Amino acid sequence: MPDIGKMLWPKSVAVVGASSDIHGLRGRILEIILSHPFGGKVYPVSRSATAVQGLQAYSSVESLPEPVDLAILIIPAQYTPAELERCGRAGIKSAVILSSGFAEEGETGTRRQDDIGAIARRYDMAVSGPNSEGFANIPASFFPTFSPVMDKNAGPIKPARALGKGQVSVISQSGGLGFAFFDRARPRNLTFRHVVTTGNEAALDVFDFVDYMLDEGDTDVFLLVLEDVKSPEKFRRAAKKALRAGKPIIVSKIGQSEPGSRAVASHTAALAGSQAAYRAMFDFYGLIEAHELDEMIDLAAGFLACGDRLPAGNRVGIYTSSGGAGIWMTDACATAGLEVPALDAATRKSIDVHIPSYGSSQNPVDSTAQGVHKMGYATFAQLVARSSLVDAVVVAVTARRSAFLERDLQKLKELKKNIRKPVFMWTYTLPADRSVEILNEAGYPLFGTAIGCARTVRAMADFRAMHERMLRKKPAEIPAPHPGRAKVRAALTVGGTVMTEWHTRALLDAYGIGGRARSLARSAAEAGMAAKAVGRPVALKVQSADIPHKTEAGAVLLNVGVDEAQAAYERVLANAMHHAPSAYIEGVLVEAMAPAGRELILGVNRDPRWGPLLMVGLGGVLVEALHDLVLAPLPLDRNAAMSLLYRLKGAAVLAPFRGMPAADTEALADLMVRLSQFALDHADAIAQIELNPVIVHGKGDGVSVVDALIIKQAAQQAERRGAVNRRKIQ
Amino acid sequence: MPDIGKMLWPKSVAVVGASSDIHGLRGRILEIILSHPFGGKVYPVSRSATAVQGLQAYSSVESLPEPVDLAILIIPAQYTPAELERCGRAGIKSAVILSSGFAEEGETGTRRQDDIGAIARRYDMAVSGPNSEGFANIPASFFPTFSPVMDKNAGPIKPARALGKGQVSVISQSGGLGFAFFDRARPRNLTFRHVVTTGNEAALDVFDFVDYMLDEGDTDVFLLVLEDVKSPEKFRRAAKKALRAGKPIIVSKIGQSEPGSRAVASHTAALAGSQAAYRAMFDFYGLIEAHELDEMIDLAAGFLACGDRLPAGNRVGIYTSSGGAGIWMTDACATAGLEVPALDAATRKSIDVHIPSYGSSQNPVDSTAQGVHKMGYATFAQLVARSSLVDAVVVAVTARRSAFLERDLQKLKELKKNIRKPVFMWTYTLPADRSVEILNEAGYPLFGTAIGCARTVRAMADFRAMHERMLRKKPAEIPAPHPGRAKVRAALTVGGTVMTEWHTRALLDAYGIGGRARSLARSAAEAGMAAKAVGRPVALKVQSADIPHKTEAGAVLLNVGVDEAQAAYERVLANAMHHAPSAYIEGVLVEAMAPAGRELILGVNRDPRWGPLLMVGLGGVLVEALHDLVLAPLPLDRNAAMSLLYRLKGAAVLAPFRGMPAADTEALADLMVRLSQFALDHADAIAQIELNPVIVHGKGDGVSVVDALIIKQAAQQAERRGAVNRRKIQ
Repeated sequence: MPDIGKMLWPKSVAVVGASSDIHGLRGRILEIILSHPFGGKVYPVSRSATAVQGLQAYSSVESLPEPVDLAILIIPAQYTPAELERCGRAGIKSAVILSSGFAEEGETGTRRQDDIGAIARRYDMAVSGPNSEGFANIPASFFPTFSPVMDKNAGPIKPARALGKGQVSVISQSGGLGFAFFDRARPRNLTFRHVVTTGNEAALDVFDFVDYMLDEGDTDVFLLVLEDVKSPEKFRRAAKKALRAGKPIIVSKIGQSEPGSRAVASHTAALAGSQAAYRAMFDFYGLIEAHELDEMIDLAAGFLACGDRLPAGNRVGIYTSSGGAGIWMTDACATAGLEVPALDAATRKSIDVHIPSYGSSQNPVDSTAQGVHKMGYATFAQLVARSSLVDAVVVAVTARRSAFLERDLQKLKELKKNIRKPVFMWTYTLPADRSVEILNEAGYPLFGTAIGCARTVRAMADFRAMHERMLRKKPAEIPAPHPGRAKVRAALTVGGTVMTEWHTRALLDAYGIGGRARSLARSAAEAGMAAKAVGRPVALKVQSADIPHKTEAGAVLLNVGVDEAQAAYERVLANAMHHAPSAYIEGVLVEAMAPAGRELILGVNRDPRWGPLLMVGLGGVLVEALHDLVLAPLPLDRNAAMSLLYRLKGAAVLAPFRGMPAADTEALADLMVRLSQFALDHADAIAQIELNPVIVHGKGDGVSVVDALIIKQAAQQAERRGAVNRRKIQ
Repeated sequence: MPDIGKMLWPKSVAVVGASSDIHGLRGRILEIILSHPFGGKVYPVSRSATAVQGLQAYSSVESLPEPVDLAILIIPAQYTPAELERCGRAGIKSAVILSSGFAEEGETGTRRQDDIGAIARRYDMAVSGPNSEGFANIPASFFPTFSPVMDKNAGPIKPARALGKGQVSVISQSGGLGFAFFDRARPRNLTFRHVVTTGNEAALDVFDFVDYMLDEGDTDVFLLVLEDVKSPEKFRRAAKKALRAGKPIIVSKIGQSEPGSRAVASHTAALAGSQAAYRAMFDFYGLIEAHELDEMIDLAAGFLACGDRLPAGNRVGIYTSSGGAGIWMTDACATAGLEVPALDAATRKSIDVHIPSYGSSQNPVDSTAQGVHKMGYATFAQLVARSSLVDAVVVAVTARRSAFLERDLQKLKELKKNIRKPVFMWTYTLPADRSVEILNEAGYPLFGTAIGCARTVRAMADFRAMHERMLRKKPAEIPAPHPGRAKVRAALTVGGTVMTEWHTRALLDAYGIGGRARSLARSAAEAGMAAKAVGRPVALKVQSADIPHKTEAGAVLLNVGVDEAQAAYERVLANAMHHAPSAYIEGVLVEAMAPAGRELILGVNRDPRWGPLLMVGLGGVLVEALHDLVLAPLPLDRNAAMSLLYRLKGAAVLAPFRGMPAADTEALADLMVRLSQFALDHADAIAQIELNPVIVHGKGDGVSVVDALIIKQAAQQAERRGAVNRRKIQ
């Protein structure tokens, strides 16, 4: 592993391509570096000039008086690989490449980018970029970037009154967005440590930097912007390490929408992966996903101020002096999935003595303007916080005038010291600068939107639960191979890539997955006998690897009476032949109609980035329309299966209602665990497994797998081209 | 109608309860009024003081030298009715009551509030409040309020550089939130006209003020915060008038969540209505709903700046110099339901000549930092706007440094003049104050969040479509009574309040709603014969008004074979008797199982505020879990029925997929129109109609109503108490 420390904390740097023209990007980098009190040596390297911005310039990195720790390259793309090679030869151990014209520009550029990766490996150099906007090391006052955000006059680099004692680091593939966090957080008094923009990531990627900063130890909150994850292994390692250390990673995965993905491709040549798969991985490793810059800053502010007192649960006490603002915040809490419980009698009594008769101590607690004028915010917040029914307190303040908060400052500080629950502030008016300072100094994050505040409380409670769960539990182990493994392996080696339901279910039977009585009829007479043996309405389904869409081909008949089975056999067969005259038909599957229940889809798909992911979705065949599906990496144990089910938006479908008993989620989770093992045991051979629909019956009555399909690995390419495109995960 | 003009534009005012103690609310009102250049006369009225804040005080409104236009009352609640009475006697024609202690305080307070309403009517006075925070008339510099937002030193009252030529008015039941809009919009350079807070609305309500301001004519955008709508009639009148005038009403209905509703009740004693019903009415009348203060200000800014050029459609062109920011905005557009189409070849060619090879002209157009440094924002925005494929343009700017925008100012002004499409600006960095001024002066709204910008574009496009539709179409007429009306009326007069499916469907048959062959068996033998007549699997359902939950009682058997029907009859009957031993049983309904299809729920419920609303929801019996249902007021014609269906989140379920043909939405819409007429014809007699599930078959194959229930009016109370609580609309 190359030494990122050389890059972020250099004692000497060369600016290759430096210019005196401060209106151009090449001039601005050096100007920005020199305008801040960076303690290291700075050497301009220029082919044409002997002095740049008042400093002696050198014609090449090879003619520098010392091998610098870091080379900053901003020269045309075509010269960049050769220059990096020279840096390597000169013993320079790190480089940041701000030049553009690499993978985002097509084939030539991609070759240049590959060259850069190779040179970095060859010299064991820490290389960031190309197409990056540089970085900022705030404690070192070192800002090798042309971002206008780091202009000397753009605003304060360090907050006058820091919120909390911790530090935030930003790592972003996008330069503009990366520095935007730093800029937008200025009025919030957050202390930043690093802002690193990684561009096209020819060598180091975002998670290399996360890993380094976790070792460094001084970053308490991470803000990431990703267009893609280059290395799933680095992602997993860094994400696990962060969660174990209790350091939250707040992430935005951009390029979610179809045109957004198009832009990603043309921008940094990243393959935008499936959003659902990313979400599954973020959820699994406890990363906090967000979609708006200020929302991410809200989250960072919450963790910086209250990271030592994360909410133990979802219950919020709200205090306000404006009834309307209290309701507004209550609605926001509900939207974020938080509870606002009515307070206990003792707490209410302690509040009632301080508020007029037209106020309320219920929750939200409304002291009215009179109440707050008499007692201030801190007193009421403390009374609410003392209730055992709340895990966190939100105070709706009007921070327009600071004088009022000034009077309350001492009490606010005491509240922070005495109460070990987090207290958050939301202002519905525009805060005066001094109000922000006062609250931040006293240790409170001040939120500008109700929903931003509520989402932060929720995310902090979730993160605490996730962190504690990780510390408790042993890492998931890959289960020992199943006894049925050898038999399935053997069966998988024969036949084509698309398996019929008949064959698929035979393999699944070996793992105890959804086995039900069924037979394969090869004549109308056999179909009639099979139906008679069942003795109640049956389903008939033509079995042919050449007809993956049975229903669409008219090759399925449902609810067929015992006496109609023979005629139905002839009919489905005729339909199938008409649909695909040259199809090879194995026979017609005959089985009892499954009893009613909740329909779901279960499947395992091999994601090109993350490997096999188990999917569960509501609605069975309606899953595409309902858009309610979730994924998880394998292996999956019972607990993981259960919690995956509860992540479905419509999980309430599984609860009892309308006379239906609760769904047999035990049986469903068991099925998911078995499917997980099946998929892992045969991960090398299988591209896709789909059980659809799976009908989940009432508690104790199990599940019925009504249709099933396996597509083997070799067929995956064809599948992608849509030939047997049964299922798309969004 | 009392004269609101006297209240908002008084020539003389009395402040009843005025005090010299400027730390108390009673002193602050007068202090705020006097600190601004209001042109009218101000008379303090005080029982105890002869002079207040340097003005001669009067002991009573009856001793004033003239009958003032407006009395501002801030005296204890118990004295308020008598004082208002004195105002009436003294010929004062308007009053604002800021005192608290009315309906929010229980029975005594409610009586006081009723008294105020009665006095207002008796003297034909325009009365706002009680429990209001007063109002602000910005053009008149008249601010009778104790809101700290209107403090002389809180910030500018009128923007230095106004955005657009129009004016915004705020009308809010909540005082704190009402003034918060004015305060938060200050840095956005919006011009405000009125901020009115209406409190408990004993007399005038929010829509009285909307109506007045529409007549006044100078308000171009309305921002409303509602806890409830007191008068549906006033709402309908004002909403229609606004839509016809093309004046957008942006509304937040607070108290949506359960604890939020609890707070509403304790706060202003408003009965929080069903959120879904409110949403239906807002949608129907084109009100724009929003849930965050800044989101509402974003919307207002969009309409002020570009109200003369609303987007003609949903297609957005995005221009950026930061690739990441372009993707970020593209994702936000997708979230808001906007399209970001790839641009046409001619437009791309015109852009390509100005950008480096590693930029993109596709959409989002990314000129890279180089491109924008060379050409500025306006040139690229104009090239994008000229494409016939886009209806609006969003420019992602970094407004951190104003110098750059300053150079672009002239071109930005020309762009605004030459291009009749709206152009919006979003900054991903914090804008310098001067940057905001420049952009606002040139006529561009500047957004701080991508999603706020995208939602505004979408809302403006929707509003244009809604406004144009209203100008085109004739008002919906109540259809002539149906020929089957008399028969149904007669049938509705007999029997209990809960009608069995058997009787319900007989009535629906008269309107051609979901008629299918069925029979009522009164013996096992009859059931057997009925099944034989059907000749394929049947459903058996016990009919009893005493057993509204048939499934839960085990009184339903599905998929019963012809030969099993007799035994099944005995079984369902036994189950029903066991469940409800004293139930009166009409018989057992026997009918063919309906063929498969998409399951929906259809119903009409009488909302206590809005009257009968038609509901359609996905999932049939699963509707509660899927939370996907929409409502609309009656009458409903075919177009309205169709567009209601498309408002379902999962409307895609109705499209063709997986071999299923498209759903027969024609037949479904027809059913909705018939149901609408049925419900209107019998609105006085019926409380609730529910068809659940309705199975929608493939195109041309119609719909099957599988279960149906009518609850008559008298039973509505019992229904509310949960006795027959089949269905709750969220």
